[in-house]
Amino acid sequence: MTSHRTQPTVQEPEIVAGNGLLHRRALLRRGLTLAGAMGAGGAGSLTGAAAEPLADPPWTHEIGGIIPPYQVASRFEKNVVRSTDNPRNEPRNSRARTPHHLLKGIITPNGLHFTICHGGVPDIDPAQHKLVIHGLVKRPLVFTLDALERYPMVSRIGFVECGGNSAPLFSNEPLQESVQAIHGLASCSEWTGVPLAALLEEAGVDLKAKWMIAEGADSPRLSRSVPLSKGLDDAMVALYQNGERIQPGQGYPMRLWLPGFEGNMNVKYLRRIKIANEPQLSYYEARTYSQILPNGQAYRFYFLQEVKSFISSPSHGQALKEPGVHEITGVAYSGTGRIAKVMVSADGGQSWGLAALQDPVLPKAFTRFRMPWRWNGGPAVLQSRAWDEGGNVQPLREAFVAQRGQTSKPPSVLAFPSQHFNSITSWAVGANGEVKHVYA
Amino acid sequence: MTSHRTQPTVQEPEIVAGNGLLHRRALLRRGLTLAGAMGAGGAGSLTGAAAEPLADPPWTHEIGGIIPPYQVASRFEKNVVRSTDNPRNEPRNSRARTPHHLLKGIITPNGLHFTICHGGVPDIDPAQHKLVIHGLVKRPLVFTLDALERYPMVSRIGFVECGGNSAPLFSNEPLQESVQAIHGLASCSEWTGVPLAALLEEAGVDLKAKWMIAEGADSPRLSRSVPLSKGLDDAMVALYQNGERIQPGQGYPMRLWLPGFEGNMNVKYLRRIKIANEPQLSYYEARTYSQILPNGQAYRFYFLQEVKSFISSPSHGQALKEPGVHEITGVAYSGTGRIAKVMVSADGGQSWGLAALQDPVLPKAFTRFRMPWRWNGGPAVLQSRAWDEGGNVQPLREAFVAQRGQTSKPPSVLAFPSQHFNSITSWAVGANGEVKHVYA
Repeated sequence: MTSHRTQPTVQEPEIVAGNGLLHRRALLRRGLTLAGAMGAGGAGSLTGAAAEPLADPPWTHEIGGIIPPYQVASRFEKNVVRSTDNPRNEPRNSRARTPHHLLKGIITPNGLHFTICHGGVPDIDPAQHKLVIHGLVKRPLVFTLDALERYPMVSRIGFVECGGNSAPLFSNEPLQESVQAIHGLASCSEWTGVPLAALLEEAGVDLKAKWMIAEGADSPRLSRSVPLSKGLDDAMVALYQNGERIQPGQGYPMRLWLPGFEGNMNVKYLRRIKIANEPQLSYYEARTYSQILPNGQAYRFYFLQEVKSFISSPSHGQALKEPGVHEITGVAYSGTGRIAKVMVSADGGQSWGLAALQDPVLPKAFTRFRMPWRWNGGPAVLQSRAWDEGGNVQPLREAFVAQRGQTSKPPSVLAFPSQHFNSITSWAVGANGEVKHVYA
Repeated sequence: MTSHRTQPTVQEPEIVAGNGLLHRRALLRRGLTLAGAMGAGGAGSLTGAAAEPLADPPWTHEIGGIIPPYQVASRFEKNVVRSTDNPRNEPRNSRARTPHHLLKGIITPNGLHFTICHGGVPDIDPAQHKLVIHGLVKRPLVFTLDALERYPMVSRIGFVECGGNSAPLFSNEPLQESVQAIHGLASCSEWTGVPLAALLEEAGVDLKAKWMIAEGADSPRLSRSVPLSKGLDDAMVALYQNGERIQPGQGYPMRLWLPGFEGNMNVKYLRRIKIANEPQLSYYEARTYSQILPNGQAYRFYFLQEVKSFISSPSHGQALKEPGVHEITGVAYSGTGRIAKVMVSADGGQSWGLAALQDPVLPKAFTRFRMPWRWNGGPAVLQSRAWDEGGNVQPLREAFVAQRGQTSKPPSVLAFPSQHFNSITSWAVGANGEVKHVYA
């Protein structure tokens, strides 16, 4: 052990809730003592510390590699990838999920943004792609990518989430799945493009119309009905994602982005917006994305992704190596607007402490929350619960399931109920440090 | 021509400065008329518009490709890469520059972040890498990556800029180079890591000490002296970049990040911070990054990247296809704090209009500015000029050169003067629409 561990100035950071939750502003000022002393070896988290930590490893004596034109991650990070569920591209849906447990911050790098395709990833030549706005408009218009490039643009950091994200949590048994498998169909990027309202106005949209039907150029020609009010509000024809052109899995060369609305409405490979008086009741909205509620009513045209949060680390499949201070962190987001607060529990919801929210807290965007926690080596159940600026709060599981139902077998996004789960996620830490998914 | 081009409701957006600069809030409401009418063909920017724009291109009839575990850009974007200047990895400096003319927004995607290495890109095993804090401290400490992962972290969006960025502008003749060649050694990311102040406090740093010497684990063991006050302020040991682990070119597995300070001080592959009373006058600070001013004084220990902006589009090498509305856009940033305003000129600085700044405007981060412009088809000289919240303003070229000097031949970062150019960039648009670099 290192000498400073017995320093009299080492004080316990303020406890804010049961089972070791520390004040969100606790940094290292009061003896978190995770480092090893020079030359001590084996102290704290120093696994196999050399007696001489500044001894030169091989790379200090070798010329490094070539700087490539497009940079890729270190070979030591080859496990930081999306999980895919259709690697042989069979004729069915394909998904790739974001590895939240390996990420920190609010930006999802483009390589790891989630993707769902109903007919594979189309290979679209941007020089041939066009966007048409027609239907109840004075002037039907055609936009090439070159034309859209000349319009005044906006940028905005925001999330996209599949309506079926978190579907495994509808199971009546807690499935032993990672945060990537459970919540991996949500990601957050800086999107840049042309405000749709400007294009609709140029087309002379009939303001008495109520709907717009958006259609993609992929082979299923996925289409969804979107309230025209959203198109005239904050909708965007997105051309760029985190600075570069949007990725093939996100709709290259352009997608409709509807901040806060469920993923599939943000039509990718956007080729047409038709203004109409009625929704079209397309296959995707009448069949794939509708479900029957416990009260017998159909649950459809539920656009908003409601307030939600989950802890990304520690999470199922990870293991704490030793007692002491660890950071609990995750993301919160709401289709309504900004996150107002996130509470964290280490005792399965018996007591809650206020988490730190990382600036900038942006509307309809991931907000990173953090809370320091001193694990005493005993059992713990970690939960987060978010509130948004509209006063909405993540429902507790019992109330959520009573209203929205659950399944008796592992659900998928094609089983019901599967849509818009936004209740609490619970991770149990065992005495061995292993983290498992539980209901609590 | 399309019929709506003669609609009586089409009005000219408000002119705010000479040669066609429009009000920053001008969107499309008043006849920017860039789209083609349905079926009209050939109108506006519609190059080769088909008579039937909704005719099905091949990808609407084909099954798409496999969703890969790590997503990459469309094959149609293969030109969106960094320019590299040492492709055979000869024993000299290597650089890769960000293609600003092809990017929009404030986030630089990780694949396109600029890189400079003095001995190639090291291939570091993170399990073997350690960070030592020693020197004038009570408790010399060793940190493994596992230990650092447990500390409370922070995230922050901010830029890194090489002190030699924009060095071509020290030439007494305007070099015919792109914005990538001139300004490509600056990029902006969301960085996540551990506040250095917390680690220094844990080590019991002697607060009477004035300097810290940061050293990397690459083969040149690049080291720089940094004022301890910066280490105790907003310095970070950065572990993540745009969510994922930092890239090999940015210091994998960890770098020192000093928001707003010149690039090479943000020591990559960070392996040691030694607390000291004096700077060390290393090779890199005494030779590479010092220069003699016109007044005979040495210019060194100039840490701050001062307020700056440049137009990324339109820029040298691009061409406007036709008169009419185009968006002028670029980035502004300051090591002092937030950008307060950006002015844009289309007549070489005779008149200026206020550009729109895209929210969020963050301290020590890229801020995207935009201004709609109606090009009349005649000559124009486009410039931007930024102010920061500290009241600093980008100097005009004449005053800047008088103080800092210029060269009579193409400069490089190893020639003097080459460091911390932050004056105005000028792009001239010719009657043929071609954009060239000029001094104005």
